[in-house]
Amino acid sequence: MSDSKKATIVVFSGDMDKVFAAFIIATGAAAAGMDTTMFFTFWGLNAIKKGKVTGQGLLGRMMGVMNRGGINRIGPSKFNFGGIGRWMFKKMMRDKGVTPLDELLQLAVDLDVNLLACKMSMDVMEIAKDDFIDEVEDVVGVATYMKHAAESEVTLFI
Amino acid sequence: MSDSKKATIVVFSGDMDKVFAAFIIATGAAAAGMDTTMFFTFWGLNAIKKGKVTGQGLLGRMMGVMNRGGINRIGPSKFNFGGIGRWMFKKMMRDKGVTPLDELLQLAVDLDVNLLACKMSMDVMEIAKDDFIDEVEDVVGVATYMKHAAESEVTLFI
Amino acid sequence: MSDSKKATIVVFSGDMDKVFAAFIIATGAAAAGMDTTMFFTFWGLNAIKKGKVTGQGLLGRMMGVMNRGGINRIGPSKFNFGGIGRWMFKKMMRDKGVTPLDELLQLAVDLDVNLLACKMSMDVMEIAKDDFIDEVEDVVGVATYMKHAAESEVTLFI
Repeated sequence: MSDSKKATIVVFSGDMDKVFAAFIIATGAAAAGMDTTMFFTFWGLNAIKKGKVTGQGLLGRMMGVMNRGGINRIGPSKFNFGGIGRWMFKKMMRDKGVTPLDELLQLAVDLDVNLLACKMSMDVMEIAKDDFIDEVEDVVGVATYMKHAAESEVTLFI
Repeated sequence: MSDSKKATIVVFSGDMDKVFAAFIIATGAAAAGMDTTMFFTFWGLNAIKKGKVTGQGLLGRMMGVMNRGGINRIGPSKFNFGGIGRWMFKKMMRDKGVTPLDELLQLAVDLDVNLLACKMSMDVMEIAKDDFIDEVEDVVGVATYMKHAAESEVTLFI
Repeated sequence: MSDSKKATIVVFSGDMDKVFAAFIIATGAAAAGMDTTMFFTFWGLNAIKKGKVTGQGLLGRMMGVMNRGGINRIGPSKFNFGGIGRWMFKKMMRDKGVTPLDELLQLAVDLDVNLLACKMSMDVMEIAKDDFIDEVEDVVGVATYMKHAAESEVTLFI
């Protein structure tokens, strides 16, 4: 596989299982020598939050509380049952020796996966650049995403 | 970016947030000079419905009532709480100066985004061409979608 | 359309409507002469299970019970209401002469769609190769998926 191939992944979902799939694919692409970009938007922003409650105004704050992020806090899209599902998935993954989500994130960073956050979603949800982990490289709009996607062999919306 | 690049987006979801993301990406692609097609199928058909209840037979009518569309009526995938979430998202977007969904749809039309509806889903859900807004250009099958997708740099399923 | 074009679809969802869309697109791609691969992972594995309860340990077994698969058993992402939705969708599809899911799966096999299962998800959920229908060709990792995707014109995550 040539180094010039590219993969660009929109991470829209904030569900643990989908974010996990996104990081597995992104690190797989980067490991195969592809130039890989993850564009986090909407609920996906939870995966790159530090985990503090975000938002200033009443609605932004409500959203921040209901939708508190941090890669170890997000739950699966099914069978969450108020957090039991998250615990169960984590335990099953650990038992099988699967790389946990926070280590996958670090692996993505180590493999030079480009982590971008969507400016418009941040504005709507009142999330600041400071609310993200330091590894997030840039806050960009849809035009920047489009530029990456148009040059990519692999484009996914997760 | 050359004008000959193409983007083809399947809009399967009828959730307000995902439909919003689909239109942001589609208008972003079109604004970047890409030849852009949106293929609406299943729940995504709600985004291009006029908003009347659809369906003839009992099951089709039940589906039409439970699943009433219209771009201003659809709710988000999370935190809807019987319509409060829709109001809250709309208010947050308006407060931040984000283009509302009905204007994004108009913008897509103005930018010559190709709006196609999936014939098979329409048949199953008993939706007629007349139930859609006039801007929907054509009712097509999967073969037409495939033809667009196979020529596209960017292919997404939302 | 040249025979050398490729489509690679990640089937992450196990919802009846999304799995249906995945098979419609995959068979559409194969019918158009494209070299087509479906990579089943997470909940998507339900679509290729024989339908027995899977799992050995307590957690794996719980997961197997809650998440019992088989292409005729999975329900839609919306309006399932404890199985009524599944019945209703099947009835609406049958009434309209739409190919049912199990026949679509057979059609995909007949059209030489490449059915792959994700090793990591199988390990986590304690699913064995034997739990799948015989048509599943191989159990692979993300590297194999990536190789297919990087050569594909159409890449989707469903």
